[in-house]
Amino acid sequence: VPRVTANKANELRRRAAEANVAAILDGTVALLEHHSKPSFVDIARAARVSRPTLYAHFPTREDLIEAVVKRAIESTARDVAGARLEEGAADLALRRLVVMGWRGLSRQRTIFRLAMDLPPKRRRQVHESALEPVRRLLMRGQRSGEFRDDQPTEWMVSLLYALLHAAAEDVAAGRLDDDVVGELVYASAIGALRPPNGDRS
Amino acid sequence: VPRVTANKANELRRRAAEANVAAILDGTVALLEHHSKPSFVDIARAARVSRPTLYAHFPTREDLIEAVVKRAIESTARDVAGARLEEGAADLALRRLVVMGWRGLSRQRTIFRLAMDLPPKRRRQVHESALEPVRRLLMRGQRSGEFRDDQPTEWMVSLLYALLHAAAEDVAAGRLDDDVVGELVYASAIGALRPPNGDRS
Repeated sequence: VPRVTANKANELRRRAAEANVAAILDGTVALLEHHSKPSFVDIARAARVSRPTLYAHFPTREDLIEAVVKRAIESTARDVAGARLEEGAADLALRRLVVMGWRGLSRQRTIFRLAMDLPPKRRRQVHESALEPVRRLLMRGQRSGEFRDDQPTEWMVSLLYALLHAAAEDVAAGRLDDDVVGELVYASAIGALRPPNGDRS
Repeated sequence: VPRVTANKANELRRRAAEANVAAILDGTVALLEHHSKPSFVDIARAARVSRPTLYAHFPTREDLIEAVVKRAIESTARDVAGARLEEGAADLALRRLVVMGWRGLSRQRTIFRLAMDLPPKRRRQVHESALEPVRRLLMRGQRSGEFRDDQPTEWMVSLLYALLHAAAEDVAAGRLDDDVVGELVYASAIGALRPPNGDRS
């Protein structure tokens, strides 16, 4: 086989695989709007791929969930990057981050519920792409004195992540209104992250 | 059948059932130290009850998990009650609460991991018995001006719950040291709950 043709064939196979994966993820998300646990048969049908193809890409349900969640998080991570967290006062950047993070979570509520099915460890891992700019913002604020520096940055990352997810659970449970969440989470987060003044008994 | 004897027989059956449930829960917890997902066969054997008895009390795995988690939470709820949250300054009571809540979570780490398998809604429900005194403390601090009153009490309950559970996940993942958690969670919580002073923009 001439080398150029072999490369070309590989390239076509790669593109077909990518298109299949995208179709499978789209099909899964579409089905999730109506069924909480669509079957692999339904997903293959919705994605117009064969079941062997589906299983080849996603051997287990958890693999598929993880891929769906990962894609959603990557889209939120792009929004977060657009919030330019490296610019301006750290507290204003934090506000932009919370608003963006919340928009991402609430736009993708179905997927958020799905993420809750992943074990906590795996859930945190798929979030890593969105957490890195958050970590950098927190370190910047700690260096400038806008955020407290008596706590590990990693704990402050966990705190922000926990507040956003707690708010999402509260909205899903009807305990909180969607449109107050941004301000609420920001107010709690900035209180927790600012250097304490005076006695903390 | 004379009435006294029938009552006596009922009483004996009730006690036997309670003893079986206790043995099943103890057996499950003991097995969980070594296996992440013990089978019903193993659990029945560890509890020295028949499988029909096990299934009669706990038809599904989720029922059993829920009962194990509930019992652990009730034990923590008793500790929380011992922390006398209704007495003294609200921030000091909050500190006692965080320390107690954390002690409960960390003593029962295996069960905490188990609770993460429950759907968030059901998880929150089984926590209700421990959350009521927390809610009362937060309302008391809001009334006295020690805690902020520009946020719904329910959100502040969620925040505390989320911070304790985030800390537990961080300890489990090796991101945080067990013995700093009490102070860390308290410091973050009190920052988030105290009335904001000055501008919050």
